[in-house]
Parts: sequence; structure tokens; C-alpha cells
Amino acid sequence: MLVVMQAHATEEQVRAICQKIESLGFRAHTIPGAERTAIGITGNKGEVESGTLEEMPGVQEVIRVTKPYKLVSRDIKAENTVITFPGTNATFGGKGLAIVAGPCSIESREQAFAAAEHVAQAGAQFFRGGAYKPRTSPYSFQGMGEEGLQIMADIREKFGLKIITEAIDHESLALVEQYADVIQIGARNMQNFSLLKRAGRSKLPVLLKRGIAATLEEFLMAAEYVMSEGNYRVVLCERGVRTFADHTRNTLDLSIVPAVQRLSHLPIIVDPSHGTGKRNKVTPLSRAAIAVGCDGLIVEVHHQPDQALSDGMQSLFPEQFADLMTQVRQIAAVLGRTVPTIGPHSTVADYRTSTQPVTV
Amino acid sequence: MLVVMQAHATEEQVRAICQKIESLGFRAHTIPGAERTAIGITGNKGEVESGTLEEMPGVQEVIRVTKPYKLVSRDIKAENTVITFPGTNATFGGKGLAIVAGPCSIESREQAFAAAEHVAQAGAQFFRGGAYKPRTSPYSFQGMGEEGLQIMADIREKFGLKIITEAIDHESLALVEQYADVIQIGARNMQNFSLLKRAGRSKLPVLLKRGIAATLEEFLMAAEYVMSEGNYRVVLCERGVRTFADHTRNTLDLSIVPAVQRLSHLPIIVDPSHGTGKRNKVTPLSRAAIAVGCDGLIVEVHHQPDQALSDGMQSLFPEQFADLMTQVRQIAAVLGRTVPTIGPHSTVADYRTSTQPVTV
Amino acid sequence: MLVVMQAHATEEQVRAICQKIESLGFRAHTIPGAERTAIGITGNKGEVESGTLEEMPGVQEVIRVTKPYKLVSRDIKAENTVITFPGTNATFGGKGLAIVAGPCSIESREQAFAAAEHVAQAGAQFFRGGAYKPRTSPYSFQGMGEEGLQIMADIREKFGLKIITEAIDHESLALVEQYADVIQIGARNMQNFSLLKRAGRSKLPVLLKRGIAATLEEFLMAAEYVMSEGNYRVVLCERGVRTFADHTRNTLDLSIVPAVQRLSHLPIIVDPSHGTGKRNKVTPLSRAAIAVGCDGLIVEVHHQPDQALSDGMQSLFPEQFADLMTQVRQIAAVLGRTVPTIGPHSTVADYRTSTQPVTV
Amino acid sequence: MLVVMQAHATEEQVRAICQKIESLGFRAHTIPGAERTAIGITGNKGEVESGTLEEMPGVQEVIRVTKPYKLVSRDIKAENTVITFPGTNATFGGKGLAIVAGPCSIESREQAFAAAEHVAQAGAQFFRGGAYKPRTSPYSFQGMGEEGLQIMADIREKFGLKIITEAIDHESLALVEQYADVIQIGARNMQNFSLLKRAGRSKLPVLLKRGIAATLEEFLMAAEYVMSEGNYRVVLCERGVRTFADHTRNTLDLSIVPAVQRLSHLPIIVDPSHGTGKRNKVTPLSRAAIAVGCDGLIVEVHHQPDQALSDGMQSLFPEQFADLMTQVRQIAAVLGRTVPTIGPHSTVADYRTSTQPVTV
Repeated sequence: MLVVMQAHATEEQVRAICQKIESLGFRAHTIPGAERTAIGITGNKGEVESGTLEEMPGVQEVIRVTKPYKLVSRDIKAENTVITFPGTNATFGGKGLAIVAGPCSIESREQAFAAAEHVAQAGAQFFRGGAYKPRTSPYSFQGMGEEGLQIMADIREKFGLKIITEAIDHESLALVEQYADVIQIGARNMQNFSLLKRAGRSKLPVLLKRGIAATLEEFLMAAEYVMSEGNYRVVLCERGVRTFADHTRNTLDLSIVPAVQRLSHLPIIVDPSHGTGKRNKVTPLSRAAIAVGCDGLIVEVHHQPDQALSDGMQSLFPEQFADLMTQVRQIAAVLGRTVPTIGPHSTVADYRTSTQPVTV
Repeated sequence: MLVVMQAHATEEQVRAICQKIESLGFRAHTIPGAERTAIGITGNKGEVESGTLEEMPGVQEVIRVTKPYKLVSRDIKAENTVITFPGTNATFGGKGLAIVAGPCSIESREQAFAAAEHVAQAGAQFFRGGAYKPRTSPYSFQGMGEEGLQIMADIREKFGLKIITEAIDHESLALVEQYADVIQIGARNMQNFSLLKRAGRSKLPVLLKRGIAATLEEFLMAAEYVMSEGNYRVVLCERGVRTFADHTRNTLDLSIVPAVQRLSHLPIIVDPSHGTGKRNKVTPLSRAAIAVGCDGLIVEVHHQPDQALSDGMQSLFPEQFADLMTQVRQIAAVLGRTVPTIGPHSTVADYRTSTQPVTV
Repeated sequence: MLVVMQAHATEEQVRAICQKIESLGFRAHTIPGAERTAIGITGNKGEVESGTLEEMPGVQEVIRVTKPYKLVSRDIKAENTVITFPGTNATFGGKGLAIVAGPCSIESREQAFAAAEHVAQAGAQFFRGGAYKPRTSPYSFQGMGEEGLQIMADIREKFGLKIITEAIDHESLALVEQYADVIQIGARNMQNFSLLKRAGRSKLPVLLKRGIAATLEEFLMAAEYVMSEGNYRVVLCERGVRTFADHTRNTLDLSIVPAVQRLSHLPIIVDPSHGTGKRNKVTPLSRAAIAVGCDGLIVEVHHQPDQALSDGMQSLFPEQFADLMTQVRQIAAVLGRTVPTIGPHSTVADYRTSTQPVTV
Repeated sequence: MLVVMQAHATEEQVRAICQKIESLGFRAHTIPGAERTAIGITGNKGEVESGTLEEMPGVQEVIRVTKPYKLVSRDIKAENTVITFPGTNATFGGKGLAIVAGPCSIESREQAFAAAEHVAQAGAQFFRGGAYKPRTSPYSFQGMGEEGLQIMADIREKFGLKIITEAIDHESLALVEQYADVIQIGARNMQNFSLLKRAGRSKLPVLLKRGIAATLEEFLMAAEYVMSEGNYRVVLCERGVRTFADHTRNTLDLSIVPAVQRLSHLPIIVDPSHGTGKRNKVTPLSRAAIAVGCDGLIVEVHHQPDQALSDGMQSLFPEQFADLMTQVRQIAAVLGRTVPTIGPHSTVADYRTSTQPVTV
């Protein structure tokens, strides 16, 4: 904490501030400047309440200095966190990029399997699909619930794809834990601290989406909540923030990728589907996300977007996703990265040659 | 929904759009303009997926027209909702203003009673205090939990103040229901739809704070979630939104008060403490909030702000709150409103004359 | 400037930063904390380039401390600036509130005189009207130019109202100087520094509107530009900022009024017409602006808003403005302020009884 | 324009709206929906003042439909505009990318030539440098003026680089026209309509930077101002917008690139230096900008950033720029684009082998 005095502050005023600081159990460090004095505050008692000081005579401003995050910080762990999935080549944070794709919502077994087949063929390692949907309207489709989770578990079985799906409360989180490989916490719940703590007690990795108006610090602190409960496998996800700009649904803030990488060891991926809200912007912004240096993408793909029960306008057609994957691989190569196949233990490569018909 | 065609769109393109619309089960209404054609879409099947149309040849833009809210709307209920508390004069939405005051967090019985005594004397009808605190950092004080709720129940007993406190998940909501008079849903949980639905099944009124980046429509839809479960007693609360402006912690958006009043019958109050985050701005913005025409205030008051465990820098001193109340009454009078005392059944007026000492 | 080191920064890294600071001609002040070291920088050479330091090993963050404004600051001049208009009771920054009213644009002599008569009768002391209009479209009405200025000079003659009108470049500013009493610099030109300097060489007071995305510091620095050229008579004006909120055209940020008053001695008024962009929100937000403690209002009034060539949707009808004035006077009284008449030398009070017909 | 009626609007109210529309000289088209009626408005008289209609009984909302831009639109010109520089391979909007680089300000002949030599060697075709600097503080370095322009003209002579520099008013624009190849209009002047019109009467191409809070429509309308005066050679430039996010100086909005390309035929480049304000984010965001599909970059390069008189913290070191160019070429190739050399008539390739020493 730093207290900046007004230019005409008297010595008595400076002294009074220092006494106040010491009386609160901290140390005061006076820094006399050419125009005004500043006073640094140190101590190991947490933070002074800045309001106390800000209203004392002679004070211009109080500036917070200390950063509150610990476990997410490179101060604690310098090397990148790499989240692996044993028996596969998929990682978050490794040299290989993580590609997560699938429909916004699981609407039926047919729809989910159709999307899964397409994204598996195109090279995604993870399948996404909502079983519990946080919708702005209570009258909109709210997801299939546990039945949707079962469908995704069957998709893992068939295609070898790892499953990522959103939990919206303690109850759904307990179910997601049973069926999925990664628990998604959505943007609207980024500061649902009760849910974050619950996710922190899970054994599964957590994909944490940035809140629609979250600063970098708040985003990292949300991850800190999960980690503070013992779950260190957190993947961050930029998905667009709310601004005045109205040509996209949200404004995708790609600069947060290098900003996170500077401060934190956690992997970060990008969601260009929610980040733009428009199908015709998903491919260019996906390219940009890979080029900026993120660790992967999460993209909505629907085999019939105009029939989708949610977010169809931002879902890619399967052939658009296949094209996107080609471009992603090329740009990844420029950055020395790859898009690994899900791996040797996966059934993706060979399920088509199986003599068993695919029952969908 | 309205489809706006490009200036050079051909008649075939217009016809194709109309056919698509009809094929989806809606009706198309062509509106030929001087420069370009627009096509209105009507039907009772909900909304067309706009992405489908937006990418068809000749289409410039698709504009959504229908508003999704129903129960919150003046379309359904023209007269203002007034929430009453039997046996008191307090209301939300009546001619009398609701004044809610108290500390950010309940920190101890002594602290809570000291604050309560001050705010009761100054004329507040409601006492606020957090037992469950959503804090940005997992290492910050998280609230006293049920013990804090019990303290507030005792405050109601002693001072006659009605109790408003925040629930952060299903578990805490169940406890808040047992002890409090109004359930607060905080800004961070405005789109925690699982929690909103749970609050919608409660018998208590709900104070719903606007999310930090919520549009008017999203704010009303959050109220719609509560109402859709059968609880029609919802009070809205403006508490500042996030913008680029850095002279206050949030930007208090007072214009939403008349905007809500135009569209909805629900009462709306204002929180100038979180709305500015600075003690020296709470009084001016409180005056402004009353002047704009809101139905009440929620203000943080602490008897020793510089010792507060949370948000001390925005808490008023008791004497500042008493001054504020004087100003509030004067401005209320200009708008034909009053600040009623909590009422005949309240013990506020006479507890001081009791022969029993106040045990705190 | 304050350099915050990383938690694991070595002593050598701290020493290297200090040496760098000294080599640039500044003094370094080391502040060892419990977790990390901070280094204060002082000197009278202006600012260090923070980029230099930010990328040195061991540095977490560089925080700017010094404020760049001088002449606008209460550090230089503690008492409020009051701008007077000799021969009248009107002031900006005195106990009396300044009320500025009139149409968005001067469209014709008839229209301007009709509006002026109404606003004079209702008690405004200043008449506003655009002769040079900054319009988003080159195809929209751009103002009557010098002819409009002449009409406003005639309005001053007839009604005694002081004239405020916008200059958009050096050429129009030279003309505005000839005809008007106060030069307005619009929001779009708040950082047109060439124009600000030119206004700083004028003998007339300057009404400086806040840019649509200007921080408090940028707003004050724009005033500093005017003052740095020798013109100390600057009135600030809050007129709404751009945010994600879409229920008003802009978000009126009333909290900047006390924030300006804390840092600067300059008067500040509020424009609820542009600040909301909606007629039905002008009156409530005008009340709020007075209640927050500003020094006056600038309001659009048109005798036939639905015929207006610009911004009709935010212009009050004359009778609405008269009602507003009544409410303004009542709320002003609560704050110990008044709305003075333009004054003894004015012809407002008696022109109606003149035997000469009003030639319009 | 579309008028949306309230759900309970009566037939008389609908009829009254239609009559009002017709009385204003427009045509009304009633669209009866399942829940409410909408009324389309067409005509060739420009726009109805929406305020007029919005306040009539039974009206819920008035939605603007028509887009005001004409000359910038693909409606008028379907194919991309390509701006060429005869005698060189450089273009804006062609298959080849435009790379503009140089220091923020021209500070001295030595500094400018040092930067120019570096950027020419690395493959830029355009040299940027400010002679007139719009600085937030009147006390900051304001640029060398005409002397700086002369230095840049000499740089063109020596290195063959085309010169882009900012004009801040009519006077500086007249000088920029004499010395430079492209006139830059800065973000702060994007709605300085007087300056835009003056640039529209110039023979030079105009590089128009997006205002810090400009919507897509406002951005295009600023270009329309230039074009409406007859200058069709406009290059748009995204340079970051202002948001709540504080990890970068501005938030670079790359999604505007495909959004502009959908609506307009004009070329668009990206400025990652101002767009992030941090040196360590310039390279990743430059890669992202090329990957999203823009037509070029404008990047700040200084041979001694820590000595820079302005914006040093966002300037690349020469070797960083050379690295960036390598990455840009690789990503450009993925999109089927190239980075052409400035061309056969340029002296870049061979000035080093000249027997004449480079006099700087």
C-alpha cells in the first residue's frame, strides 16, 4: 500500500499518517519527493483498510500494491502447469494444443453423436456439450441433465474423446464428476465462490471461464479459490468480455493470454464461439487465438446449427470446423506447437473400421 | 425479429428468406423501403435462430424485437408492486422509502448491535449485515455463518428492524430463510440461475442486486427466474456497474431507476456504498438516488469503519448516516415521499426507556 | 513511480533496478516488505519511462503515482473558482446554480426565439444552441453557422440570456468569440488539443464537456490544456460516458461530480439530455444531478421536439422544462443553493410589458 | 425504423401511431404478431425522430434499422479497395500486407534515421513517426513539427520508405500533405469532423484510427466523412478500445477486422503497440492480427526505447521487430498473403552498397 500526500500537505499531516499506520500494526516508510511525499506501508498482517487513510487530512490517494494471489502465481511455481490425461496424448498446457469441440447443448443422442463423430474425425481431443445450461431466460431449454451426461459418457466410449461439461451448482457438479473428465465452471459462475470451493475439492481438472466483466486479478483469484481447496489442475478460458462494442456479442480479449502467461503458470485456452457470438467470426478469431499463443480452443460445432436449441448462430458447421482445424495446425506450426491426436489408447482412429455398427 | 436486406439484394434473395422463414413455421411480412427491403417475422413458436438467416445471401442484419420477460413486465401487471411487512410501516415500492443500513459483515455481537442501535435511531427500518460473504480472495474473512444470522435475529428482537442478508448457495439460503425477513442475492450471483430458482421457491421477499455488467434486460430476466418459480416479491437493487472509469470502484447507473420503472412493476432501490466504493461519495450519491425516484437505499454503516473486516472504506460513520437521513427526508419530500418509521409494533421507539439493560 | 518486485526477486535484481533508476537521474527508495520489495522513485525530471523498468528481471509491476495536473488542482488553488458575468447574478461555481437551456441546434430565428422565450420565462440564465453541429453523419444537418450565431446574439439582446455555443475548429471558434459569452468544447473534441489551446488563448470562459470515454484524469488534463494557455475560466461538464448499458444512449456518471470537487477547484455542471438521450429520463436525472451537488445543468428544450433537426428525442417540451425548474429549485434549497435570476440588468423580467412587439 | 407496441396496446393506439407516421411523410406497415404488433416505417425522407414515437401511448420501443453509411459500404462497391503507391509494391488492401513501423515521435535526425534503417532492413514498406503529437498533458513533448516532417522526407529519400504521419489540425494537415505519403488521423480526432472533411479534400490517402470508444458504425461514418468530400483512399486502423480491463492500456478488438470486411470495401490494419501499450504484448498480438486477416500492421520501433520521449514502454527494440517480421511472414503465408518489399524503385535494397556514406 502506498499513501500519496497532497502537494501542500504539512509535516504534521505526514506524521499523523505514519502514526496511524504504526498504530494499525504496520510499518510506514516515508518517501519525500520533489513535489509531494509518498508513504509506503509494509507488514505481514494483510492489508490496511485504505478508506481509513484516504480521508485523513493531506492525503491525495491510496494505492494498493500487493497482489492477493498466491497459488496461481509464478512466484510460487515458475514452470508451466501441464495437465495430462493418462493413456492419451491430450494435454492442457503442453506443447500440444487442446481442441475442445461440440454442440452448445446436448439435445439428443442422435445430435450429440453426429457432432461427436464430426469433431473426432477433424481431430478434436475433447468433446464439449451442455447438460445443464445457464440460460438468460427461465423459459429457454435448460439442458437434458443426467441423461445428457450419460450420452456424453457413451461418446467417450465410442470415440475416445475426453468429456468437458458445465456444472452449475453442487448437485450438478456431483453428477458431472461421475460422468465427465473435466468440470467446466461457466462465466456467470466465475465468482460463485461456493461452487468454486466445491470444484476445488473434486479430483477432476476444472475449466474456469472468465466472467463477462472480470479483471485479470479477479480471474486469477477465482482460480485461486479452486486451488486453495487442493485442486491444482485448473485451465483458464478467455471467452470475451462485455464492452460498448456491438458488432460482436462479446469482445474477445486475446491480450489476456500473454498477460496470464506472464503472471501465472496455469494453461489458458480461448472460446471464440462465445467470444464473438457470430459464426462468421469464429474461424478468424480461432486463428488469432492460436497465433497469440494460447494452449487450445473450445469451439461450438453443430451438425444442423439452424435447428440448435441454443446458440446456433455461433456454432460452426462440421465442414467449417474441419477447415478450421487445417488452419489451426498450420498456425500452430509457426509457433512450434502441434495438435496431437487423442492418442494410442483412443478408439477414434479405428472405430470406423470396427465390424460393430455404431449404435447411436 | 426483423431481417434487413442489403441495398442490392435481389427479389430472389428476398423470396428465399421468406421461404426459409415460412419453412421454420413462422410468418414473413415484407416491408419494401426506399433503399432496401426489411422482412418482419411473426409467430408463436418462440424465436427463430437468427444465425440461420444472417448468413443467407442478401442479408445485412437480423434484429431481435421481442422481449423475453413476462412476469416482471408492466404488460402483465400495470400497477406497482408494493411489498409489505405486516405489523410495520415498512414497504418496498410504497409511498414510503425503504432504508436498509448496517455493516458489510457481521463481525461480532458487539459490532452488530452497535451498528444496529445507530441505524435504528437514525430511522432505518431494515438492518443489513453479511453472514456469508462472497469475497474476491479465499483468504479474506468469509463471514460468521449461522452465528451471524442468530445475531441478526436478536437485533430484530431488540430493535424491531427487519433483517436482510445474503445467501450464496442453497445451503445458506435455507438458513437465511430461518432467520431473516428478506433474502439478498448478490451481484455476483445475479445469473446463478440455480440459486435464483431456489429463491423463487422461498416464502420470503428477495432483494436482487444487479450484476456488475448486467444489461437492463438481463437484470429483469434474473427477476423473472425468481418469479417464474412462484415468488412474486422481488426488489431490484442498482449497485453500480463496471466501466472504464476509475475514480469510483463501480459506476452507479442511476438512469436504470426510471428505465426499470417504465418497463416493470417491481420496486427498485439503490446501493451507493458498493456503487461508489468510497465513503466520501456515499452521501452525495444517496441524495441523487432519492432524487432520481428510487424506492429506497441500502447503505453500509459501521461504528468503527477503520476496524472493519470488509469494505470499511465505503462504510459511513454513524453520525454521517444520521446526517444522510436528514437529507434523504428533505429530498424525499420534494418527490412526495416519506421515510416511515418501522411502525407501531416496533420496539425501536421505546427500547431505550426500558428498565431492562440492553444486553449486547 | 513505484516498482513492485516479484516475491522471489533477488537482492541483485533489486540493486540493478536501483542503479538503473539512479542512472536515469532519479532517486530510488527501497521499501522491504514481508513478501516482496517495492522501490519508490522520486526526482524532479518528470517521469521515468515505466517500460524500461517493467521488463527488467525480478520486476512484477510498475505503478505510476504522480498526477500530471497542476493548474486545475486544489493543490495550487484551494478555494472554488467562481466564474461571474458582470451585470448579472449568473455564475458558474457560486452558491447560485447555473441553468443553461435551449435547443440542440439553431434551426431558424422563429425556432430559436420560441425556445429562448420559454427558457427565459422558466428561469434559465444561459441560452444554448448549436450553430456548428458535430454530427455522426456527413449527410445530417450541420448547423446554420454564423447566421445561427447572429440569432443567438439577438436572443441575448432581447431576453438578457447569456449565450453558450459550441466551436468545432479554429475558424468557428473565432466566430463564436465574437457572438457568444461562453465557448463550448464538445465531448468529441475533448482531446482535440489544438482546439483546446486555441480556447486557452480566448478571453471567454470555456465549457468543456467530458469525452465519451474520458477518465477523470484525462478530463482534468483537457482543462489543464486550456488553463496552460492562460484562460483560467473553465467549467467542466459531465454528459454521460459510453458503457455496455443500452437502456440509455450514454451512462450518466454523477459520481464524477464529487470526485472533481475533491481534486479540482473548477465548477462542474451536468448535461442530462446527452447523458441519457431519452426525454423521459431528463427530469429524474436532472433532479439527481442537483442532489449530487453539481453547479448547474445544461438541458435541451425545443418547442416542437418532434420537428427538431437534431436530437429531438432528448429535448424537453417547454412545459416539462418549467416543471423541472420547480423541482430543481426545491432540491437546490435542500443543499443550501439557489437558482438566481439572470439579474437586474437583464431584460427578462420586463420585455413582455414592453410596448414594442417582439420581432422574431 | 420499427415501432414495437406493448402487448396490451389497443387498436386505436396502433392506428394513432400509423397516422403520426403518415403525417410525417412516411409510410407505415403494420405487422401483427402473436403477442404484440410491430409497425415498420419506410420512406425516402431520412429518419423519423424516434423520440416522437417512443413516447406515444402503447409504444414499447422504437428500433432504428437503416444504416447511415453509403460510400464506405459494400452495398455501393462490392470489391475490396486497394490503395497503391506507384513505383512500389506496397499496397493497402491488396494481397500483400502493409507493414508500417517507426518511432512514436520523431525526436531527432539521428534517432529517426536509426529507427528507419532498422525497419527498412527488416522489411517494412512504410515509416511512421509523429511530428505533431497529441499528448494527454500540455507539459509533455509535443513533437518537432515541420522539422520532423523534413526529417521523414529525407528518410523516404534515403530508404525508399513511404511516410505516414499524423495531422492534428488544418494547419498541420497542410504541412503533412507537403511532406508525407499518407495522412494519419489519430484516435482522439476520429470525430473531429472539421479535420475529417479537410482530409477528404486532400490528394493523399488517409489512415483513420478508430476512436477509443467508437462503435463500428461510428468508425465507418468517420470514413464516410472523408469519402463524402471526394477522397476515396481511406485505410481503417484498429488500435484498441477502452474497457474495464486493466492488464493492457487498451483492449485490442480484433473482431472488428472481419466485421469491417463484411460491411465495407476499405482496407483495415491493426496497431498492436497502442492496442496493448506494453512491449511484451506487441509481438503476440501482431501475430494474432495477421492471423485474423487484417491488411497490415502499424508498429512502434525505437532503437533505444528507454530513452524515448513518448510511449517508449510500447516500442519494440529493432531486433524484436526483425523477429516479429519473420513470424508475420510465416503466418501471412497460411492465409495466402505475402509481405512484399517496397519495390524495384526503392533504394532500400541497395543503399547499403552505395559508395556514399549515409549522412544522418
